[in-house]
Amino acid sequence: MRELKELRELTGTEEGAQRVAFTPVWKQARDWFRAKLEELPVTVEQDEAGNLWATLEGEDPRALLLGGHLDSVPNGGWLDGCLNVLAGLETLRRIAAQYEGSKPPFTVRLVDWADEEGARFGMSLFGSSAFSGNLDLERCRTLKDRDGITLGAALAEHGLSLEDAPRAASRQENCAAYLELHIEQGPVLENLDLPLGGVLGTFGVERHQVRFHGQAAHSGSTPMDVRRDAFLPAGKMAQEVYTITDRHGGVSTIGFCRTAPGIVTSVVEDCLITLDQRHLEADGLQALLADARAASERYAEEASVSVNWERLWQIEPILFDDELIELCDEAIKEVAGVSHRLPSGPLHDAAEVARAGIPTVMMFVQSLRGISHNRIEDTEEEHLELAVRAFDSLADRTLNWLAERA
Amino acid sequence: MRELKELRELTGTEEGAQRVAFTPVWKQARDWFRAKLEELPVTVEQDEAGNLWATLEGEDPRALLLGGHLDSVPNGGWLDGCLNVLAGLETLRRIAAQYEGSKPPFTVRLVDWADEEGARFGMSLFGSSAFSGNLDLERCRTLKDRDGITLGAALAEHGLSLEDAPRAASRQENCAAYLELHIEQGPVLENLDLPLGGVLGTFGVERHQVRFHGQAAHSGSTPMDVRRDAFLPAGKMAQEVYTITDRHGGVSTIGFCRTAPGIVTSVVEDCLITLDQRHLEADGLQALLADARAASERYAEEASVSVNWERLWQIEPILFDDELIELCDEAIKEVAGVSHRLPSGPLHDAAEVARAGIPTVMMFVQSLRGISHNRIEDTEEEHLELAVRAFDSLADRTLNWLAERA
Repeated sequence: MRELKELRELTGTEEGAQRVAFTPVWKQARDWFRAKLEELPVTVEQDEAGNLWATLEGEDPRALLLGGHLDSVPNGGWLDGCLNVLAGLETLRRIAAQYEGSKPPFTVRLVDWADEEGARFGMSLFGSSAFSGNLDLERCRTLKDRDGITLGAALAEHGLSLEDAPRAASRQENCAAYLELHIEQGPVLENLDLPLGGVLGTFGVERHQVRFHGQAAHSGSTPMDVRRDAFLPAGKMAQEVYTITDRHGGVSTIGFCRTAPGIVTSVVEDCLITLDQRHLEADGLQALLADARAASERYAEEASVSVNWERLWQIEPILFDDELIELCDEAIKEVAGVSHRLPSGPLHDAAEVARAGIPTVMMFVQSLRGISHNRIEDTEEEHLELAVRAFDSLADRTLNWLAERA
Repeated sequence: MRELKELRELTGTEEGAQRVAFTPVWKQARDWFRAKLEELPVTVEQDEAGNLWATLEGEDPRALLLGGHLDSVPNGGWLDGCLNVLAGLETLRRIAAQYEGSKPPFTVRLVDWADEEGARFGMSLFGSSAFSGNLDLERCRTLKDRDGITLGAALAEHGLSLEDAPRAASRQENCAAYLELHIEQGPVLENLDLPLGGVLGTFGVERHQVRFHGQAAHSGSTPMDVRRDAFLPAGKMAQEVYTITDRHGGVSTIGFCRTAPGIVTSVVEDCLITLDQRHLEADGLQALLADARAASERYAEEASVSVNWERLWQIEPILFDDELIELCDEAIKEVAGVSHRLPSGPLHDAAEVARAGIPTVMMFVQSLRGISHNRIEDTEEEHLELAVRAFDSLADRTLNWLAERA
């Protein structure tokens, strides 16, 4: 708790956390973190993608990985990302103390992933996707911030070369399990009045823009029955995405709507909406998409307008390890009595680690009001303390699990 | 037809008509029109609001008024407004020739209203509302064009004083009837395959912005059943305004929709739509408004969001004169065989004249594709010729009607 508040003091303003990756404040956060690591018997290295690794060597070179990210969005929350770096530090301390003068049975590594948020260059999970072998280097070469500074130039300021970043994938060697504690960033645990939950995996995402195109016409002189109103089918989708999600599970969001010509005296000629659909199962995600597409085509036909879909982004669902989910539940029950399993809507570095084939699980701690990416993001201190204890128990259980599998 | 094309040539470009009121091109159109009037035994004057009056004195000082407007929107159509000025000129010529060497039984006046469109200063019906006594002088004093030029300064360039404009109302004296021919600017006559129709009046208008306000939330981490999604009730209104209009008649248009924060990964917190409702009967208009308001409140409650209505503009329905509508039908049947009665969605100078208590009617001629305020606005030449003939017959019938009432 003390260290979380120290970091908030050091790298936040009244507007919230300012630890945007590859900026001076982020560097400051890392220097502070490195100073903490110097008190421990660990080796500290930065890899080619800017991920910072602290390694406590064990008898067995196979390693338990604990991970988080110090970087934040601008005006971000005080816990998002750094909670797991500091909870991991606490567990690293506990294990180092427990095996003082000897080696723990397995290597334990704490990683601070570089640029999880993607706030500056618009691409999230930079460091962890380099680690997992999924970095899109071609896309990275095109990225610039608001001031026109390229990602490559920003990396160079921190002694890194963009072209070398994929070599961070070599760090996968000997990684035997990955654990990540994170604030939920949603309202599920708060609504259940539970402090902690085990995470099943991260939702797959289908993200599209849907454009309806009709005919502009004078609002006064055009009878209703001859209109080709592009807002009509777009509006019908508002309810329909709820109906479809009731049917198949997951979540669907129309986050944006723009009308053209967009004047009070004209029927809408062109209406663009965005649709973001997420599901923990690939089949469920495809069902959400297929039903939304069919509904849009039906509504378009009814309104005598055309409809056109364009995919903005897509990622498959990523499921966490069944046995580690079980261990996570046990650890939560130990400290909090009750656990709950839930999917993660947002993506996390853990998803990239799981994509690399490393057994992975995440633990969520309740977020107040489900709000994140905002200075009012918060979690009760009592819950944070439970979270750190449960996470430490999970680390212990995972070391035992590794020993059983050896 | 020749004169319509001459005017198009003189004051249009490839982009359409450019006769924006109080600009040099509009002045050029008026000079051309004045030259045509000089060939007739009429007196020509400009009133304090910039309306141009051509008076053919009759035995009786009571006058038949024919009106239109030479001004256009930028990149406007070749017929909108000027059709009735030139049809009126043709009728004035015919009456002057018929009574050559004597006086017609009643005075006949042709008026070219100033700034019907309001394209430059954002306020329509300037000249005719000064005539009717409805000019909002306080509002006029605040109006500026895009270059910051005030309406007052633009009027001064044409020898007019804004403060004197209301004195144009004195021209109401002796006005006994008003006739206006206009393109329909809608698809009704084209869909009925009819060239001409008689106009019942102009729709009353209720124009509002409706703002739904909920709560932004992450699209991935927020279950559907805890969302307070402001786009959901706004979208439901899209269908509902059609249902309500089926019930009460009239027309309703959602022309604009804006979402905030308006990003693909967030539930909509704030959604603003505009609603433009029009009806020929005051009761019908109030029913449209009341039902839309009730629906918005019901949908807002269902979605746990708030809703707020703000009136943008309002005008009551203005009904034309029953007997003149009858004469209009007769004139149309004489030249085209079949007539049709329809309301006018857009406002016209005729509405202001009717508000002044002067018996008024309009005649509509078919618009191709119902399109106006655009260079592709068009009407078949055959229909224009029928229109001018029917309008002339209507003028004749109205003179007889005045004589009967004398």
